[in-house]
Amino acid sequence: MTLEYLSQNRAFNGDQFVCSHMSETTGTEMTFSVYVPPHMPGVKLPVLWYLSGLTCTHANVTEKGEYRAACAEHGIIFVAPDTSPRGEDVPDAADEYDFGKGAGFYVDATQEPWAANYRMRSYVERELPDLIAEHFPVDLTRQGITGHSMGGHGALTIGLRNPDRFRSVSAFSPIVNPSQVPWGEKALSRYLGEDRDAWREYDAVALIEDGARLDHLLVDQGTADNFLEEQLKTGALAMACAKAGMKPEIRMQEGYDHSYYFISTFMAEHVAWHAARMGA
Amino acid sequence: MTLEYLSQNRAFNGDQFVCSHMSETTGTEMTFSVYVPPHMPGVKLPVLWYLSGLTCTHANVTEKGEYRAACAEHGIIFVAPDTSPRGEDVPDAADEYDFGKGAGFYVDATQEPWAANYRMRSYVERELPDLIAEHFPVDLTRQGITGHSMGGHGALTIGLRNPDRFRSVSAFSPIVNPSQVPWGEKALSRYLGEDRDAWREYDAVALIEDGARLDHLLVDQGTADNFLEEQLKTGALAMACAKAGMKPEIRMQEGYDHSYYFISTFMAEHVAWHAARMGA
Repeated sequence: MTLEYLSQNRAFNGDQFVCSHMSETTGTEMTFSVYVPPHMPGVKLPVLWYLSGLTCTHANVTEKGEYRAACAEHGIIFVAPDTSPRGEDVPDAADEYDFGKGAGFYVDATQEPWAANYRMRSYVERELPDLIAEHFPVDLTRQGITGHSMGGHGALTIGLRNPDRFRSVSAFSPIVNPSQVPWGEKALSRYLGEDRDAWREYDAVALIEDGARLDHLLVDQGTADNFLEEQLKTGALAMACAKAGMKPEIRMQEGYDHSYYFISTFMAEHVAWHAARMGA
Repeated sequence: MTLEYLSQNRAFNGDQFVCSHMSETTGTEMTFSVYVPPHMPGVKLPVLWYLSGLTCTHANVTEKGEYRAACAEHGIIFVAPDTSPRGEDVPDAADEYDFGKGAGFYVDATQEPWAANYRMRSYVERELPDLIAEHFPVDLTRQGITGHSMGGHGALTIGLRNPDRFRSVSAFSPIVNPSQVPWGEKALSRYLGEDRDAWREYDAVALIEDGARLDHLLVDQGTADNFLEEQLKTGALAMACAKAGMKPEIRMQEGYDHSYYFISTFMAEHVAWHAARMGA
């Protein structure tokens, strides 16, 4: 699989790459970023996946996430995919920030006109790991996943569906129960259709209700987050975990909002938390 | 003096502010950012000024600079001004990234049509410190200054002209000898006129040749910086310091470029270096 290197910048004695490739899964050119920390030649490193939120691309966390110092310290490769297919030929919902481009919701769409390109689940679960393993020194037996908001939803649901792939799952202000909130109802109904049973594998709370489990789960949520009550509903995750006997660390962070100022504050703690569980 | 708070975000247990005010110096609305770390009520904190480079506003370092963790750790207020006056009424040089808006060069212009608004020297040296002291808990007896590229030039020249104000001066990839390089010759000739004697107070190497001294000076410069040979000329600063008996720390950083990936890598070291000299 051919990879195009769009940029390479030295950072914290490692290298921050931005790459693109023609994706078989989405049928589009896809862009992502990869930070490779300083390491001994020939060594394979654990990999932490970061899934971004609504309206974002790979660039937001790459520029504002403040993960490189911690990844360099712990020897972790950090991969940040885009949030949707892109391009003039990709169907979009004009003027809607929470649907279409920038709002892939990490699902494989089944409804037209979305089904051909909007396949971010398969892209993140299958195509991208193979591509990364081919071109970067990653040890796929040591993976963790995290994300923010819609990307927190992505991290939780991909983590819950693939417990053998990830040693650790965390999230910043995730959408934990999309079937029950406006952002999620809009996206899931249009990508997947009106049959709500088909939504359950894309809903962290529903997945836990249906038997999925995670041994290592960390969630940070700001108390001053404007989306907390209507869209994120952290309490629903806490409740589902309690009923299931799971023991997540869910931390309400006083005074923090939904922005990258919040994410960057706790990023180093998340990286260290994953490092301890990934054997970094 | 009235201050408008454009945003406030919790970060590293402190607050990142973006503010604007009507500047008497530039005759325009000016925007800047201030990070206030966690601190005890009533305590006054040392302040580190950061001057940005060509094309930048306050936003670049605020989003990409990775200074908040270190400022929170050391208890330092971090202020990032804009790089020029802004607004539709401000004269500009259309299509020139290195002159006019975004390229104030930290001078007080004497030539028309620039003299009315382009007064970034007086803005940073006089008006902004008073404004900051009125609205934030800063101890003006403990100041340091740093900056990047054109802002490194600003930090060096403002530091050299005001040795009693700053306990420490540092720079990332500064323009050290603007009188002798294309960026500087263009800006200084148009803002200040063709008399090169008038340029010397805006040229770090010339200031040192003319007797200015700094006790504490740290410079980081990437070896892979595309602008090093033609525009930055770190060697000219090292030479001038050696002739003057100054003992700066000038560090050539292998493989680093001119970007915020470079700046963010060494930002925490600069903050700690200033902290040690500012009594933070």
